[in-house]
Amino acid sequence: MIKVPGFAGSGISCGIKKRGKKDLALIFSEYPAKAAGMFTENIVKAPPVLLGMERIKNGLCQAVLVNSGVANAFTGKPGMKAALLTTGCAARELGIDESLVIPSSTGVIGGPLPVEKINKAMPVLVSELREEGLLDAAEAIMTTDAFPKYATTKVGIGGRTGTVCVIGKGAGMIMPNMATMLAYILTDISVPRRTLTKALRNAVNNSFNKIIVDGDTSTNDTVLMLANGKLGNTAIGLTGTNYRKLEQAVTETAAVVAEMIVKDGEGATKTVRIIVKGARSESDAENVARTIGNSLLVKSALYGEDPNWGRIVAAAGRAGVDFNPDRLDLYFGDHKILSNSRQVMDEASALEVMKTPKFSITLDLKTGKKASFVITSDITYDYLKINAHYRT
Amino acid sequence: MIKVPGFAGSGISCGIKKRGKKDLALIFSEYPAKAAGMFTENIVKAPPVLLGMERIKNGLCQAVLVNSGVANAFTGKPGMKAALLTTGCAARELGIDESLVIPSSTGVIGGPLPVEKINKAMPVLVSELREEGLLDAAEAIMTTDAFPKYATTKVGIGGRTGTVCVIGKGAGMIMPNMATMLAYILTDISVPRRTLTKALRNAVNNSFNKIIVDGDTSTNDTVLMLANGKLGNTAIGLTGTNYRKLEQAVTETAAVVAEMIVKDGEGATKTVRIIVKGARSESDAENVARTIGNSLLVKSALYGEDPNWGRIVAAAGRAGVDFNPDRLDLYFGDHKILSNSRQVMDEASALEVMKTPKFSITLDLKTGKKASFVITSDITYDYLKINAHYRT
Repeated sequence: MIKVPGFAGSGISCGIKKRGKKDLALIFSEYPAKAAGMFTENIVKAPPVLLGMERIKNGLCQAVLVNSGVANAFTGKPGMKAALLTTGCAARELGIDESLVIPSSTGVIGGPLPVEKINKAMPVLVSELREEGLLDAAEAIMTTDAFPKYATTKVGIGGRTGTVCVIGKGAGMIMPNMATMLAYILTDISVPRRTLTKALRNAVNNSFNKIIVDGDTSTNDTVLMLANGKLGNTAIGLTGTNYRKLEQAVTETAAVVAEMIVKDGEGATKTVRIIVKGARSESDAENVARTIGNSLLVKSALYGEDPNWGRIVAAAGRAGVDFNPDRLDLYFGDHKILSNSRQVMDEASALEVMKTPKFSITLDLKTGKKASFVITSDITYDYLKINAHYRT
Repeated sequence: MIKVPGFAGSGISCGIKKRGKKDLALIFSEYPAKAAGMFTENIVKAPPVLLGMERIKNGLCQAVLVNSGVANAFTGKPGMKAALLTTGCAARELGIDESLVIPSSTGVIGGPLPVEKINKAMPVLVSELREEGLLDAAEAIMTTDAFPKYATTKVGIGGRTGTVCVIGKGAGMIMPNMATMLAYILTDISVPRRTLTKALRNAVNNSFNKIIVDGDTSTNDTVLMLANGKLGNTAIGLTGTNYRKLEQAVTETAAVVAEMIVKDGEGATKTVRIIVKGARSESDAENVARTIGNSLLVKSALYGEDPNWGRIVAAAGRAGVDFNPDRLDLYFGDHKILSNSRQVMDEASALEVMKTPKFSITLDLKTGKKASFVITSDITYDYLKINAHYRT
């Protein structure tokens, strides 16, 4: 169960998805919460994203209305109108200003948002709001996800115990910089806007922005953080112990959900952390890690449990980062596979590592002292099964 | 059959591959030919690539020795020594200077090149050289290729008829900038070095550099062009009618082989030309086309014959190119699917197009007058079957 003081949730079926599956979610804070958001970098931004970017500017949010099944993306002015109509309906039903409602949509790109179905279901959606209802909300935002995704952390702030909860979804179209991924970070800790923005950015960069499923970036990605202040703590500044505790709690909780997203990567059977160290800069390290984590040949080899390190170093070589190809060290888990680019592996040990569902691959470039990582998954028959016929 | 005046070829099994499959090829010119080459941009370059880059500097080549099965990549100094030993053996057997022999290797990265097997087979390889043997060479350079790849064009130059022949291989690890792909362009036309270099670069940029199978770039890519001058024509300059005819012939012949490579893309069932027009620059157009052609979600939809245009525009949106997402036109074959980003499609027609094995998708950005394209394939269960267990 997920509970965050001062927040309520609900999730119901309004008829967008087939077979009565939940497809409409509401997250509500009893007070207007301090709010910050991060949104897709795709230049094709869905109307709900554009509306959310506009509304978040005032720094407050009290309700998040999410539908799954249809992304309301690439729908132009009618799509914006639909986002305005549905959030307007939610605001009236909740008795709050419509500027305090932020929408998200996820699902097929291109179809119109069924405004009538959503608004007709609004009274029920609002009446079902309850503290224990966040799990229903987590279920209602799922698309190809196999399970709902959430995590909660308790954190001591000035003698009181605050809660940080992350609810997320997303299984395909994931890659660094938040592909079709929605995440809502809820906390009762009192956090001023500037602090919230900083903590959110740092947490997202070290969690959701490190995951890769298929290299695509969606039109709808959104991470919102809402802090309703119900805990009554002294407001947290931009630095200091309390700030560090907050950022750590948000990062760790987000990282748990991010890893769930990879684990649930469409059809995935492996969760693999690609660590690149010994780089001249963190961005060099990240570029190499990302190129490896995105390589279809590497992801196929992970699926086949083939310790084909040649594909890993070949991917590293096309990342646009300079290193000496004769000096690489490579590890599968703790097993050293390459030392100064010479194979020193006991292939059986490497194979043992690859047979586990979760492991790390570490590449040491030996050109500097910086490191970074990404979390990737394998690509499987089931990925294709899901994505070849997604709409049928 | 493939025949180019003054060239001979042979292809035999020397025991690198299992079951007596051909794995060693020789292409020989009766005169030292003017030569130019283009090589992988991966910073991890295999020893045969490094040796080829060195030897091509003198502008002449008389023999190309190619093995399949093992890439001799990431093998360090022993790998370079192996390339020197095998090309040295070929040179002695052919009675030519070893600087005139360029090696290529393709196959698994990381294993040592079996020098003894190759050199032991060299007398037979050389004795089998014959004008009709280029097809054997084309077969011996195959790895996961389902069929040998070659094309020939005749071109009139100053009253004589010259031949341009392209022999290629490559089915996985293909993406713009020549992934694990080998191609040898042979002509009897007399072409000075500078002209050869220009024609090769332009032809490759409009053929092999436009194809995508899986977005990976190999350590071994090589395109060599050899012009032995047997036709006896007046040498061709850097401009003028004869130059244009030469460049066109080389480009068209290379494009035929490039398209064969996509068609044979591991497990592929579709060959799709992604055309982007109305761009501000050719590189903008190419970036958008390449991002679409590389999208795993687009490639999955091609496989599933799902006219999911949302994935196409979403991919376009993350290419880093500015355009107005509300003004796009999109076509499947000749059918207009989107007009000013509004769906105007008869989905049944779109589906008809997608059911064919070869078609085009055209995106008009309406921001300028430049265009470019890539050729991509779908990604299928068979791709994974081939790549998950490549080494087993």
